[in-house]
Amino acid sequence: MTASTESSAPGSTARTRVRRLPELAAQDRATLHAVLDDALVATVAVVDDGQPYALPVACARDGERLLLHGSTGSRLFRLLAAGVPACVTVTLVDGLVLARSAFESSMNYRSVMVLGSSAVVDEADKQAAMRRLTEHLMPGRWAQLRPPTRKELAATTVVAMPLAECSVKVSSGDPQDPDEDLDAPVWAGVVPVEHSWGEPLASADLRFDAEPPAYVRGWRHGRT
Amino acid sequence: MTASTESSAPGSTARTRVRRLPELAAQDRATLHAVLDDALVATVAVVDDGQPYALPVACARDGERLLLHGSTGSRLFRLLAAGVPACVTVTLVDGLVLARSAFESSMNYRSVMVLGSSAVVDEADKQAAMRRLTEHLMPGRWAQLRPPTRKELAATTVVAMPLAECSVKVSSGDPQDPDEDLDAPVWAGVVPVEHSWGEPLASADLRFDAEPPAYVRGWRHGRT
Repeated sequence: MTASTESSAPGSTARTRVRRLPELAAQDRATLHAVLDDALVATVAVVDDGQPYALPVACARDGERLLLHGSTGSRLFRLLAAGVPACVTVTLVDGLVLARSAFESSMNYRSVMVLGSSAVVDEADKQAAMRRLTEHLMPGRWAQLRPPTRKELAATTVVAMPLAECSVKVSSGDPQDPDEDLDAPVWAGVVPVEHSWGEPLASADLRFDAEPPAYVRGWRHGRT
Repeated sequence: MTASTESSAPGSTARTRVRRLPELAAQDRATLHAVLDDALVATVAVVDDGQPYALPVACARDGERLLLHGSTGSRLFRLLAAGVPACVTVTLVDGLVLARSAFESSMNYRSVMVLGSSAVVDEADKQAAMRRLTEHLMPGRWAQLRPPTRKELAATTVVAMPLAECSVKVSSGDPQDPDEDLDAPVWAGVVPVEHSWGEPLASADLRFDAEPPAYVRGWRHGRT
């Protein structure tokens, strides 16, 4: 295993060019999509009165855009709906890299940064976008649920961030110690971070005796 | 289990007051510290030319400040070192909350947002700060490693963000469906997301036959 190096350029601009460790920049669409598809949450940054604010938001990729939803009353979603400059960042930590020095010690991770302005998903597409969000986060769930009410739809803002101006970084594999450190009498390698689904916990107010749905058992591990 | 409600106010200001779902705001120092101590990575947002940028950065709490380190050559760390307005956000996803409607479906999570300006950790304290970072991320590791060289120290910027202006949100427990949804014939509850350490993978360039260090086996699960 070595730190990955991939090339070709989808939405790379001067603003998203990976400056630090550019050899970690992966720029093919498949990698971009795969990282986003493993993410349950993105951190969305906007600026208000010169101060950046970065908040966690559930996300779902829908083709070449990233869907985000929140309360119509939230300041973040009012700003996103207004199309202010935003940055949406996804980070998946895959492991700790134990090198022979603190300096070379690091993490294996996959990250995506998307710059741009989001657009409000209009009423005609809103329910489909909410289905996509639910099905990304909880595959199989949507068909079991009653449709959203008019009031619920009105209370929800869904925005889409185009995957136009993006950077992707993937760090994987062994530590990269310089030759002069290789004889150090210390173990070196990677300790993976694993993400898995725990045993489903029934709600205390469940009114009937039901097993957790079968689709939950089929959820793919490694998403976070 | 219910969504937690905690009170008292450490570093709460008008800018960090939790506007959405204020009942989830936890404002005691112990919760703030516990969330940060479970985090390996923070997302750090700064503004450059009106555009927010949010990047993942390894972090470690050191008392009432959060330490971040990076390359002296990185744009982010040049901005942080200059004391620009920053936002440091930590998010830990604990589970998916499967309610009877898409609207009430959500996540259990713990998050912290710290606003302010970071200060450069000066040369006298830099090595101690690097030890703190290493020991937070990889407890037990520092004592096994050679000390950083002068060149490595010069190539690293360490900044500290005071835990002065912060918000903490903790969402836990069962879905909060309205009464009229409770007879819906659908399972409801929480599917936990679990974070654990995988089997350590020795580096391909390891020059001796060594077991992974014992301290790795003692690392606490649940950090990410």
